[in-house]
Amino acid sequence: MNDLSPLLSPRSIAILGASSDFRKVNGRPLKHLLDKGYAGKIYPVNPKYSKLGALVCYPSISALPEAVDLAIVAVPARFVAAALCDLGKNGAKAAIVFSSGFAETGPAGRALEQQVIAAAHAAGLRLCGPNCLGLINAFERVIATFGQFADGDTPPGPVGFVTQSGAFGTAIAALARRRALGLGYFVNTGNEGDVTFAQVMREVLADPRIRVGAGYIEGLKDGVGLIELADTALAAGKPLVLVKVGRSKAGTRAAASHTGSLAGADAVFDGVIRQHGILRARNEEHMLDMVEAFACCGLPLGNGLGIITQSGGAGVLMADRAEELGLSVPVLSDVTQQALQEVIPEFGACGNPVDVTGQFVAEPALLRESVRLVLSDPQVHVGIVWLQLMDAYADSLITIFEEIKSRVGKPFIVCWVAAPEKALHGLRARDIAVLRGAEPAVDAAAALVRYAELRRQWQIDGPAPSALTPPKLNLPSASIPSATMDVGNVSVRCGEGVIVPTLSAARLLNACGVALARVELARSADEAGACAERLGYPVALKIESPDIPHKTEAKGVMLDLRDSAAVKAAFADVTTNARRYKPDAAIDGVIVQAMVQGEVELVVGLKHDPVFGMVIMVGLGGIHVEVLKDVAFRKAPVTEMEAGRMLDDLKSRAILDGVRDNPAVDRAALTRLISAVSLFGAAAGERLQELDLNPVLAGPAGATAVDWLMVCN
Amino acid sequence: MNDLSPLLSPRSIAILGASSDFRKVNGRPLKHLLDKGYAGKIYPVNPKYSKLGALVCYPSISALPEAVDLAIVAVPARFVAAALCDLGKNGAKAAIVFSSGFAETGPAGRALEQQVIAAAHAAGLRLCGPNCLGLINAFERVIATFGQFADGDTPPGPVGFVTQSGAFGTAIAALARRRALGLGYFVNTGNEGDVTFAQVMREVLADPRIRVGAGYIEGLKDGVGLIELADTALAAGKPLVLVKVGRSKAGTRAAASHTGSLAGADAVFDGVIRQHGILRARNEEHMLDMVEAFACCGLPLGNGLGIITQSGGAGVLMADRAEELGLSVPVLSDVTQQALQEVIPEFGACGNPVDVTGQFVAEPALLRESVRLVLSDPQVHVGIVWLQLMDAYADSLITIFEEIKSRVGKPFIVCWVAAPEKALHGLRARDIAVLRGAEPAVDAAAALVRYAELRRQWQIDGPAPSALTPPKLNLPSASIPSATMDVGNVSVRCGEGVIVPTLSAARLLNACGVALARVELARSADEAGACAERLGYPVALKIESPDIPHKTEAKGVMLDLRDSAAVKAAFADVTTNARRYKPDAAIDGVIVQAMVQGEVELVVGLKHDPVFGMVIMVGLGGIHVEVLKDVAFRKAPVTEMEAGRMLDDLKSRAILDGVRDNPAVDRAALTRLISAVSLFGAAAGERLQELDLNPVLAGPAGATAVDWLMVCN
Repeated sequence: MNDLSPLLSPRSIAILGASSDFRKVNGRPLKHLLDKGYAGKIYPVNPKYSKLGALVCYPSISALPEAVDLAIVAVPARFVAAALCDLGKNGAKAAIVFSSGFAETGPAGRALEQQVIAAAHAAGLRLCGPNCLGLINAFERVIATFGQFADGDTPPGPVGFVTQSGAFGTAIAALARRRALGLGYFVNTGNEGDVTFAQVMREVLADPRIRVGAGYIEGLKDGVGLIELADTALAAGKPLVLVKVGRSKAGTRAAASHTGSLAGADAVFDGVIRQHGILRARNEEHMLDMVEAFACCGLPLGNGLGIITQSGGAGVLMADRAEELGLSVPVLSDVTQQALQEVIPEFGACGNPVDVTGQFVAEPALLRESVRLVLSDPQVHVGIVWLQLMDAYADSLITIFEEIKSRVGKPFIVCWVAAPEKALHGLRARDIAVLRGAEPAVDAAAALVRYAELRRQWQIDGPAPSALTPPKLNLPSASIPSATMDVGNVSVRCGEGVIVPTLSAARLLNACGVALARVELARSADEAGACAERLGYPVALKIESPDIPHKTEAKGVMLDLRDSAAVKAAFADVTTNARRYKPDAAIDGVIVQAMVQGEVELVVGLKHDPVFGMVIMVGLGGIHVEVLKDVAFRKAPVTEMEAGRMLDDLKSRAILDGVRDNPAVDRAALTRLISAVSLFGAAAGERLQELDLNPVLAGPAGATAVDWLMVCN
Repeated sequence: MNDLSPLLSPRSIAILGASSDFRKVNGRPLKHLLDKGYAGKIYPVNPKYSKLGALVCYPSISALPEAVDLAIVAVPARFVAAALCDLGKNGAKAAIVFSSGFAETGPAGRALEQQVIAAAHAAGLRLCGPNCLGLINAFERVIATFGQFADGDTPPGPVGFVTQSGAFGTAIAALARRRALGLGYFVNTGNEGDVTFAQVMREVLADPRIRVGAGYIEGLKDGVGLIELADTALAAGKPLVLVKVGRSKAGTRAAASHTGSLAGADAVFDGVIRQHGILRARNEEHMLDMVEAFACCGLPLGNGLGIITQSGGAGVLMADRAEELGLSVPVLSDVTQQALQEVIPEFGACGNPVDVTGQFVAEPALLRESVRLVLSDPQVHVGIVWLQLMDAYADSLITIFEEIKSRVGKPFIVCWVAAPEKALHGLRARDIAVLRGAEPAVDAAAALVRYAELRRQWQIDGPAPSALTPPKLNLPSASIPSATMDVGNVSVRCGEGVIVPTLSAARLLNACGVALARVELARSADEAGACAERLGYPVALKIESPDIPHKTEAKGVMLDLRDSAAVKAAFADVTTNARRYKPDAAIDGVIVQAMVQGEVELVVGLKHDPVFGMVIMVGLGGIHVEVLKDVAFRKAPVTEMEAGRMLDDLKSRAILDGVRDNPAVDRAALTRLISAVSLFGAAAGERLQELDLNPVLAGPAGATAVDWLMVCN
């Protein structure tokens, strides 16, 4: 038995402090449970009344006749812990705490919240909230909320919606209702003292009546939980669409002040959810557009968009947006175009977009046949049908779209601008997605295509972990035990990071299959010359000191040394410069390094994210990382395929395909390197504080890290 | 008298082929003119009837009792020219041609359209269309359209809407109506055989009842007209918001097939409209969001956004979007925050976003005072108030917002998610902008800020042309007559471009104040050595030949030559390489050039755009231009301030501020160079085919072009 079912599907509900005033927070859930026909037992608890309507009202929790599944708690903040304690004695299994005045108000509230959490734990209760609006399970008519959304109809539907925000969540739910998009679940997790967004969503998606998850997130503590949720959803083929706010500095400041919890780095969040097949929406309408498409449409088998429109201009706008989103708007085959010419008026257009003109009002067959023909083109995988107004023809158009849906296998979306209400409701009742504008329709079609790709990727190389740690890597499968972390002669100082010597770091990275420039350590000018002879000219020299992380700044690097004399002179220069830069630096010697060819500079790094743990970053070198912040993150480890998707995420990815006369870089070598680094990161665990490979040089035949800075603690 | 007023404000309207069947194209305008109370004279023309309702129906145009202002023509395409001819004899002043079957159908239709245009011209008629839905002047109740939009209410309002697309335009107009956003004019220009988008919009904006222009464009022939329109609108302080489709390759292909006219390069369009103060919207809703804000709000005096919300989450989302759009979300002053603390409940927030919580329902003063206090903060210039649902409180909230509007001088936008209809209409009736979502509200606020900036810029350095051609440039004020184009010894071959010799090009550019590397021409190795002595080492050598535009490809360039011997050897190498590369190339000698310092490479260019004439392009060098297409265009000439805005338009502009240890570049020198190049472009006129300064090197003290390719014809 799952421990969240008493919360989400309770067989009995106690309402503490239940009121007969249905305008009050304590009165509204009672009213809704009664009005909407909740079939379980309802136990109002309030010493003021002996009955509330037809229901017996109990004077206290201890007076309840049975252990309840769920209790609704809306007492003032300072009384919540005691109430939970009483509920524990009753044997209650879950509680929703509406009360605010906790972590969202500051340190004192945070302390109070800790007491409440402890009380819930001691009482063996799962806790939703505090500071939440509660939840609705529309299937079982559990209306355990005082939110405005419950005032209207709450018919069940295939969408599970979980929100950290009460007010914004209410707005989103109301927008979904206006679209006739049924929410099977509406859950506001509030401060998440116990039950988290990810836990609830996972449970919601496990309900077979739910086909798609929609979520609103402000701050995330449980990165692992989100990943588990995502992987479960992907395996089940249930798309999960999230809005997460706090993308910008201003937004992050606002979020910190609002939720009292620090948002993780947004770019990391973005990368990790991509990796795990979650779709991110920009805003509430964008989310609902995608959700509606998923609720109504099957998945397309490719990225070809067929556009059938009544307006050439709308067609152009959709083609623009489609290209921006990486969809193809293929010119239709000759066969399709010839067939369309039989159907479409002379002043229409048979390419793609296909302009059927307003004539279809007079001839319903025109629209029906056009859509059928376009969707039958082998290059088209998903369709959009654009029309506007047509108030007088709503019924016949609903019939046409219903016929189309019954005849064609490929998914399509209706974009009906300024549609009559009747048409919207009629189409949605028939499970036909109907969106309000040209760009939203293309965005939704792109989401279908994207999710279908994610599913295909997952079928090939997911679930990711099992595809990694292949035996040829010759690595311990779980992790590098810290004993084998060959940090050797470095004394680990507590609390702060220590630079791992270049050769030690190289051994560790090489063991994971990371391609590095060949290096040797020289302790004298003569040794440096001998190293250079072995490595072959030209070579580079770099000062080796645990106290000098920024070697260039210390003038501790000399490049492109072409003979023994130059090497020996450079040894002297480099060591002198280093001593001048930092007189008390411990100097281990000088690294002699073979020069490496490569046209494109990249940066590959590892770091600990507070939410997701070890993450890997990839970017193009120089200004791309530093100025343009054009980087991609994933949770480590990543497969080579996923590493390729990181490269695809870069805005400047075209540079990898070769610029001017440069050939394309060796992507296979590059993704091999990225995956190997990520494996190292996953294996190294928490002792690794930071790894920077900067630059990695990639050329037409290989990719090699030429500088690496590894910091452990 | 303006020659478009008979079209837009006719005192009499003839309807050719008028029908008593009000469902027909020829019947609908008659019905609407009668129903909506057009006050001018209506002359139905149709030999089938002697009366239509209460109106006399005339058997032919020649039977009309007076010269009409406007005639509506909806006869089959092949009869249109004859009808226009008859209208000419009547003395009619304007005609709207609904008929399709012209340029939009192909070459035969294009030929027919030419006949129609010629007929209109011969008849002295201004022509709207063909292939258009017609127009509405809601003030005078001129409903000269058969479009669906006229079926509903068409109350007048401050928005003038002109659209090239009929169907999409109808959809946009319907969406405006749903917002209770009154369209004073709705005009569909169709194929624009005569009257263009820009001409109509200019006339519409000249109406004092119109406060804002909204336009939809698919293809533009009349670039000069659009610029004149933009400048007039800016001078009048009437914002102009456009949607133009055809941004992408797929979209451009679709547009070409739809309109039969080639869209100009979208990036050029985008740059030129920025230069002239037009705001571009992504799509129809984005346009209407902006238009609504302009119709209801004054202009903010800065970019500080104050956010008052009932949901912390919505506040974060708005802060995110605000930062993306370059707005500031300032932390409120201590004074403001203290005052807010008196007003806002404990669990609210007094920073910015300000979270007033749902409590304002019980205490109207809470919302009113909060908004007033936030907008009184000196760092806040525009406000957004976010709320949701509140169906039961619509009336009191309308009153609150009305009070706020009467009390505060700064503009604010209400963002009311899932608002009751009543609230939307109530607020709009009070000229309060009310948008449907958090991001759209921020987009609209950003449009107010942006337009206010554009107006301030225009007040400082606009209208642009008068601020240019200052006498110190010592240039002929209008253009360089072709005789003074010192193309000298180059024989101009017809039809194809000719490379202007480096020194001649340098003289022309120097005369306009463009900073160039110093160059001399050497015809022998000894001369090259002498040149280098005069210029000072190090120098570069470049082959000089009208037949070798790509000198590097020909191995015709050698850099960083540090002494006489190197220069002489290089002379031999360069000429030998050039002869090997192209044995029959005419070689004029070798350019000796002083090497120039500069950390950042840019590209500055001039070219002819088919729509806008001479345009200037600026981008950062290398991959930024070639791969990332990160460039900014303007019509030449540009002021130095405008040149600065071109730099600000670059996504990679941060590079100019200095990366790593590099200092910021000398922006003044750079904008001086760009403006000077643009002046040269404007002065050179059509003989200049292309100019490429690539690279321009910019450093902390100067910006200098080190290579220039000028092609004339």
